[in-house]
Amino acid sequence: MAKLIESHLFSDDAMMKKFCFIVELDKLKAVFRRTLLLDKSRTENDAEHSWEMATMALVLHSYAEPETDLLRVLKMLLIHDLVEIDAGDTYVYDQNGVRDQAQREAAAATRIFGLLGGPEGVELFALWREFEDRVTPEARFARALDRLQPLLHNYCTEGQVWRQNAIKVSQVRRAMQVIGEGSAQLGAFADRLIGASVEEGYLTTAD
Amino acid sequence: MAKLIESHLFSDDAMMKKFCFIVELDKLKAVFRRTLLLDKSRTENDAEHSWEMATMALVLHSYAEPETDLLRVLKMLLIHDLVEIDAGDTYVYDQNGVRDQAQREAAAATRIFGLLGGPEGVELFALWREFEDRVTPEARFARALDRLQPLLHNYCTEGQVWRQNAIKVSQVRRAMQVIGEGSAQLGAFADRLIGASVEEGYLTTAD
Repeated sequence: MAKLIESHLFSDDAMMKKFCFIVELDKLKAVFRRTLLLDKSRTENDAEHSWEMATMALVLHSYAEPETDLLRVLKMLLIHDLVEIDAGDTYVYDQNGVRDQAQREAAAATRIFGLLGGPEGVELFALWREFEDRVTPEARFARALDRLQPLLHNYCTEGQVWRQNAIKVSQVRRAMQVIGEGSAQLGAFADRLIGASVEEGYLTTAD
Repeated sequence: MAKLIESHLFSDDAMMKKFCFIVELDKLKAVFRRTLLLDKSRTENDAEHSWEMATMALVLHSYAEPETDLLRVLKMLLIHDLVEIDAGDTYVYDQNGVRDQAQREAAAATRIFGLLGGPEGVELFALWREFEDRVTPEARFARALDRLQPLLHNYCTEGQVWRQNAIKVSQVRRAMQVIGEGSAQLGAFADRLIGASVEEGYLTTAD
């Protein structure tokens, strides 16, 4: 690994920084999530999750608000979880974990996008911030996919992770509101998936 | 899994097809490549590879030919290996494997993009074909990254996979020409990485 940083390999400092950032990317493949693969063989990692979401965006883009810029959506989805290299994955239903999540992730963003530096580092940091703020149509759509993807996996794996963590339908409905706020059609689909999950007994209605 | 295909969950047939395609994506996480993670703990899979390459494209785009459309590059990189769900990963130095590779992958593309159907299915099939044909600037740049990424991993892991497979520098130089054909600056970088790999003894110069 140390070899790569030898400056004579690069045409200039900017190129070296780009590759220092690229080498850092590999660590996202070791950040594992709560989401099961559909064959239930293991949980997925953040790199796989990010790829699946970006590819979902390609085919679900027609459900975004009109004028939503797909390129910006893809950029956000590709880099949105890089902060978890330092901050780890925080389960959406982990009330303790979410408390200092924003602070931990902001520190990580400063370090990781700082490796890249230059205009690209500034752009990716701003895209990460935009994704978190969920104000623009691009961010709202990207965040909708970020919630829809694990919902889909939970439904397709008979709610195994929900059941293991005693997740209630009220918690899921609250977390999944983000989907309808990013895409009316995907929000309606999510509601149907949640309804079917209750019918199948994947989620409990108890309080 | 079977549950998902229940048509009452979807607003229409086009939405159902989109989600049948999305569910299929998950299988790419089980297609493993010859490339080691940088910590050498395991080889990476196609989903991780596709994510890393798309994210590389975000920061290396300035090395593509002028007017290269980043959105089209990203789309190609995200979907370029889906055919390996059916056809498996063919090692670039596997002379037997490459013989019927094109045929196996074309059949896979027909099946997998056919799940999606509609204008999106046609678009993604055409992008896959374009990536394979390597004629447009977008395809040349995407293909350059597809060769550069494993080269970088091989260099950073002291050529472990090259040494296990007795790969010669002449084979690597031939395979890596694609990089310079997609980006002059990345081609020069690849040449330096190959040179350094020979110096370090990661690659043999014997015939």
